[in-house]
Amino acid sequence: MSAKAGGDSTETTVAGTKDTLAARTSGNGPDPSIREGLAGVVIAQSEICKVDGERGTLSFRGYDIGELACHSTFEETSYLLFYGELPTAAELKAFSARLIGERAIDDTIWRILSVLPETVEPMEALRTCVSALCSIDCEDDDTSEANTEKSIRLVAKVPTIVAAYYRHKQGLSPIDPDPELGHAANFLYMLSGEQPTEMQAGSMDLAMLLMAEHGFNASTFSARVTAATLSDIYSAVTTAIGTLKGPLHGGANRRAMQMMLDIGSVDNVEPYITAALDRKERIMGFGHRVYKTAPDPRSAYLRGRLYELCAELGDFHYYDLATAIAETVEARKGLYPNVDFYAGPLLYLLGVPLEVFIPVFAISRIPGWTAHVMEQYARNRLIRPLATYVGPDNRPYQAIDQR
Amino acid sequence: MSAKAGGDSTETTVAGTKDTLAARTSGNGPDPSIREGLAGVVIAQSEICKVDGERGTLSFRGYDIGELACHSTFEETSYLLFYGELPTAAELKAFSARLIGERAIDDTIWRILSVLPETVEPMEALRTCVSALCSIDCEDDDTSEANTEKSIRLVAKVPTIVAAYYRHKQGLSPIDPDPELGHAANFLYMLSGEQPTEMQAGSMDLAMLLMAEHGFNASTFSARVTAATLSDIYSAVTTAIGTLKGPLHGGANRRAMQMMLDIGSVDNVEPYITAALDRKERIMGFGHRVYKTAPDPRSAYLRGRLYELCAELGDFHYYDLATAIAETVEARKGLYPNVDFYAGPLLYLLGVPLEVFIPVFAISRIPGWTAHVMEQYARNRLIRPLATYVGPDNRPYQAIDQR
Repeated sequence: MSAKAGGDSTETTVAGTKDTLAARTSGNGPDPSIREGLAGVVIAQSEICKVDGERGTLSFRGYDIGELACHSTFEETSYLLFYGELPTAAELKAFSARLIGERAIDDTIWRILSVLPETVEPMEALRTCVSALCSIDCEDDDTSEANTEKSIRLVAKVPTIVAAYYRHKQGLSPIDPDPELGHAANFLYMLSGEQPTEMQAGSMDLAMLLMAEHGFNASTFSARVTAATLSDIYSAVTTAIGTLKGPLHGGANRRAMQMMLDIGSVDNVEPYITAALDRKERIMGFGHRVYKTAPDPRSAYLRGRLYELCAELGDFHYYDLATAIAETVEARKGLYPNVDFYAGPLLYLLGVPLEVFIPVFAISRIPGWTAHVMEQYARNRLIRPLATYVGPDNRPYQAIDQR
Repeated sequence: MSAKAGGDSTETTVAGTKDTLAARTSGNGPDPSIREGLAGVVIAQSEICKVDGERGTLSFRGYDIGELACHSTFEETSYLLFYGELPTAAELKAFSARLIGERAIDDTIWRILSVLPETVEPMEALRTCVSALCSIDCEDDDTSEANTEKSIRLVAKVPTIVAAYYRHKQGLSPIDPDPELGHAANFLYMLSGEQPTEMQAGSMDLAMLLMAEHGFNASTFSARVTAATLSDIYSAVTTAIGTLKGPLHGGANRRAMQMMLDIGSVDNVEPYITAALDRKERIMGFGHRVYKTAPDPRSAYLRGRLYELCAELGDFHYYDLATAIAETVEARKGLYPNVDFYAGPLLYLLGVPLEVFIPVFAISRIPGWTAHVMEQYARNRLIRPLATYVGPDNRPYQAIDQR
């Protein structure tokens, strides 16, 4: 399998050639009756997220992403995604307490983490553990209240699983969650054992908030396809993790950061990008299936935060490097950086190891995934498309000794 | 969550009321620009399976399902699905030997099975174990040859996992696979410890062959959505298992059988079905999203085999009962039995416990799922639809103390 054919990262468009099945098989350009990759196909009405690709705007439950980025937190935004309204102070306090109370993981998960070979990647371990998490919810209660509770448990426990498995692989002891810390700060603490500064915690919180939800992207859509058979919410989130794992989706933030490390210096940006485009390689972190004519609105807030974080560190190397790459790719290909591009150096400067980048995306997206799964349950219809058969037909079955 | 709104079983249509999101939200009937559930939407060209819903025909790689049902085996059909051609005698021998050689499961899987609480359902255990199976394939080889090998391993190992977990839950020791037995016979042997008769083995083989593939059904489609981010084949099959688990998809064979047990006698068919339809309950095992105007072609072969199996047993109770139910539902609702309906009593008479019915569907569908995943890789495009936002808009963010 190769990464050809209209690849998209966190829905990224390839900054190289395009190649669709229909174009390759018909010889006469794409067949418009075949909705390749469901591009442009509206599959449902939704009350969760509005993505306006032409204007480059994004809102969660009617609140602009810029307002949320400047004023809200990951916990508050999760509440908003689940319940459709911003919480009062009392509601937020209770919600945050619920999250803190659910951070611990039970024995089954610990044992599975210890059984998995060290060669298993963090996303594979996470997929297996979330699949096993259903064992703590053996009650078959599938009311929307019960599913909201399960969603809260998933938001709370997934960071603990990710941090525990990362430390296990490093041969380090796991670090218990600290109930004094907020969601983002606690995750950084469980990874490294060090209390993050306010700027670090705020930067992590912002990155998680901006990644919390994004409409019918591939992982969310796959979770809804699973949920639409009325399968359970753990199945749906397991599906989403497996889908996010792919290099055309969640893998882009890590690859974008790897590219920045490979480029190394501002002087090397122009020759590196030129050589990559000459080889028709994709430039990770640029372009988007939905934001085609305007920049991904999330990237501006991440860029701003990267500047502030660099200022605190007194070192603008990664800010300057990222900005130079963005300007070069925009000038050469007309593509804007997406959410993955500036998330890369931000997470890197927060001390998040590269192999934990995709799991951080998963941690952040749990509220979005589970809100969509609950919306699917509330207005369910099985999701089942058709295909056109183009293989050989009416073949006579011959006895095996006559083949 | 309730099972309303255009429910489908193994793509079954509800034999009751219909209720779509668009109809409920617009008040003016469905919005045709919204492709609810992707019904009737052609998403791709495919060379694997042709389903003609109007004529009620089905073929795999150009071979009619009737020819395969009468002359082929599950192993040969799996080969056909993977390679696109029927095998020669030597190829089939080598393929079957590969399957036999891969039946054993490794220590990681045994340990996970032993760690899972006994409350975990077989499909949940299977989902977790298949997710963990990737640990045996730590090489990152994603050529089509490597993926075919992984597919063969999945076909071979999944029955062993299902049988082992079932026996573990019953407090019984696992039974090692018997290399002298074919795929279907070995599964029945690993479940019960008893060698099946030729009729029993042949009946299981036929049921598995008929369930091996069925186009872009919900589980296969979800696997393709996962694969389309270029995630690995274990992620995609884990997705498919979670999707199949839902009562509107894989759950139908078990529920159809449970209904037959509840009805109990031919005399009770008419009053039971009348009462169920009066309560607007779905009748499981009837109707199909694709076969709307003609019967599901698989059901005739399962019905014929059920007759033969009953003849061997000298007891036609379940054949008579199933036939009476099918005639009643067809007369009352104009719906035909689908693959789930006759598969229920067939599996029941083969001694398959009800809780293993959905896992049997999974065991049978592995060749179809993996063939589709490989086709997706070969002609990939990210699958990402859109939604129309219908929630509140342009809401001003208010400080928390002003809410």
